[in-house]
Amino acid sequence: MNNEKIYTAAIVVIGNEVLSGRVQDLNVNYLALGLKDQGIRLREVRIIPDVKKTIVECVNELRAQHDYVFTTGGIGPTHDDITAESIAAAFDVALECNPQAAAMLEQYYGDRINAGRLRMANIPAGGELLDNPVSFAPGFRLHNVYVLPGVPRIMQAMFDTFKHRLAGGRPVRSRTVNAFIGESVVAAGLAAIQDRYDDVEIGSYPFVRQERFGCALVARSVDLTRLAEAAEAIAALLRGLGVEPQISDGESTPSG
Amino acid sequence: MNNEKIYTAAIVVIGNEVLSGRVQDLNVNYLALGLKDQGIRLREVRIIPDVKKTIVECVNELRAQHDYVFTTGGIGPTHDDITAESIAAAFDVALECNPQAAAMLEQYYGDRINAGRLRMANIPAGGELLDNPVSFAPGFRLHNVYVLPGVPRIMQAMFDTFKHRLAGGRPVRSRTVNAFIGESVVAAGLAAIQDRYDDVEIGSYPFVRQERFGCALVARSVDLTRLAEAAEAIAALLRGLGVEPQISDGESTPSG
Repeated sequence: MNNEKIYTAAIVVIGNEVLSGRVQDLNVNYLALGLKDQGIRLREVRIIPDVKKTIVECVNELRAQHDYVFTTGGIGPTHDDITAESIAAAFDVALECNPQAAAMLEQYYGDRINAGRLRMANIPAGGELLDNPVSFAPGFRLHNVYVLPGVPRIMQAMFDTFKHRLAGGRPVRSRTVNAFIGESVVAAGLAAIQDRYDDVEIGSYPFVRQERFGCALVARSVDLTRLAEAAEAIAALLRGLGVEPQISDGESTPSG
Repeated sequence: MNNEKIYTAAIVVIGNEVLSGRVQDLNVNYLALGLKDQGIRLREVRIIPDVKKTIVECVNELRAQHDYVFTTGGIGPTHDDITAESIAAAFDVALECNPQAAAMLEQYYGDRINAGRLRMANIPAGGELLDNPVSFAPGFRLHNVYVLPGVPRIMQAMFDTFKHRLAGGRPVRSRTVNAFIGESVVAAGLAAIQDRYDDVEIGSYPFVRQERFGCALVARSVDLTRLAEAAEAIAALLRGLGVEPQISDGESTPSG
């Protein structure tokens, strides 16, 4: 089991509108949770402008490093939608009219088909269309790069059509130990536990609830036994410090 | 005015908890809007794991490319708070106990001061503490790198104490032309306007409101005259297509 493959992914948000502050990105969180379910570790996210050279360099760097790259945004019909041509340039292949995409657009628009609309059918040679249950935005996959729309509702629907087919490893599972205690009080003991459980990733996240400081101590591992042991060690540390911990699966902090 | 300096920035989110899907990042949007006000263009965001080597490489790459780099996260007292030591390594300087930070911590904790708490006073040699109106998390600046906390409320309060002192250029201003019309209908005309106004960045963002498709056509420029002209050209395009546009300052899309 020690030689098992670790599957990793990166996300590229192609988004002048995120960098300008116009919108809050919502796609990263959705993809992060979906990839986690599939046993794929999200290792990096980059939010970059709608600039072809930047997209090409970024995608080429990340696709060499990771099993999967997901891009979001820039696949509509307007002049600022340059993702498809940028991905073609990144792979040094032609941008071609995809017959399947063109047929769908022609069927939908009928007489109202025009050059701008047909432009949406252009995807890089060798690309494979991704199902889009919501609209006509033509997402596609080329090798290990998945090109998704930017509108969250459409991106989510498209991702959900194929995510269960993504090859992954054992999923990272989490247990969270929440307690009303300051991070600095647990720091030394927690570091000792992290040393003992070096195959478990332990994170500490402070929170404030009802005017009280607390921290969520999150253990993450693919090994459920080690995960349970680490979480129990953290809980014992807290009890030793005089506070009663709340332990739960996943990474949630109780609200309220 | 053509040789005016363009100030640029990058953000590095040091965040296992963002990559794991535990939390939705909220800091990028706040910083994006604040930087925009100061005439600083946010050009890239990277969300990376709490791994020292990754932080060092990422910060060194971005601080060479931009006037400002802002990091968020990883400056608390626990073992997974490795931002300060990573920044010290990036600049190849020592991590030192900052007397001012140590004095504040000692004053606050009194007899309860301990090694874990004092660890928070360690910042890279040459670093300058940033004011923290909310807590003791010791943000600091080292050259063009600003190291901020990850908790949004604390990050925002700290950023607000110094943002008005950040040198910037003319702010990019925006005007948004909203209309209930499909992107593909406006695409050709919009591309022609973008060609005529190559000093104005024009973005098209589809939306759905009350079951109707619309798009927000956003013009961005430092030149208010050119901005107004481009927005008026977009509005005229829409009127020519038979829809009445709503024009507003900024980048908002009417809700409802």
